[in-house]
Amino acid sequence: MTNNPARPLHLRIALVGDFAIGPGKADLLEGIRDTGSIAAAGRRMKMSYKRAWSLVEAMNSAFREPVVETERGGSARGGARLTSTGEEVLATYRRMMDKAGKAAAPEIDILKSMLSPDATSNANGD
Amino acid sequence: MTNNPARPLHLRIALVGDFAIGPGKADLLEGIRDTGSIAAAGRRMKMSYKRAWSLVEAMNSAFREPVVETERGGSARGGARLTSTGEEVLATYRRMMDKAGKAAAPEIDILKSMLSPDATSNANGD
Repeated sequence: MTNNPARPLHLRIALVGDFAIGPGKADLLEGIRDTGSIAAAGRRMKMSYKRAWSLVEAMNSAFREPVVETERGGSARGGARLTSTGEEVLATYRRMMDKAGKAAAPEIDILKSMLSPDATSNANGD
Repeated sequence: MTNNPARPLHLRIALVGDFAIGPGKADLLEGIRDTGSIAAAGRRMKMSYKRAWSLVEAMNSAFREPVVETERGGSARGGARLTSTGEEVLATYRRMMDKAGKAAAPEIDILKSMLSPDATSNANGD
């Protein structure tokens, strides 16, 4: 899996059974909020429409209220928007990431300080 | 990916370039420490010997000092043990997980409280 340098921390939380929330579902919710479309949100993440739909369906089933509402009979494939539950799930996940990232920062610095200078200079380019 | 109920938090840190440390590498280090063998540590995780070796090699290259030392010419496939660097990487990762988990706990509780009762009861069996 390729790292995203802008997001060194990859955090996934198992909530119940096989249902977890991590960067994929959070980014998808954010994309739907920003684009008003499940298809467009998926494309932004290079995720198939089928995969994006299946993640939305998994979230809609797992939470008490749906996280995404779709408008059938609208424009091509209809529009989609976050419900208030979807907004809350996204905001809660982002807040959790922020807190976990701050808590983990000293240990991340220690691990980085233990890296080989070769590994560091190679990654910094040329 | 299947969730491990004993470890709801899955945390991976991108340290440099494509090199990250997460539960797989941490568990492998712990297994080598406990079993004295890369092969046995891999088996414990249902990981192929080849995969276990490649993770050890990636860590040995990325850090300034090797994290695992192997004894060639010993028993079958030789023994392996963590170096002091390996012990420190493992302890630092575990401490980071612990701090991040505590920091994230209130948001995890919020997300769990938003789950559908059906999702919860199905996962609890029957």
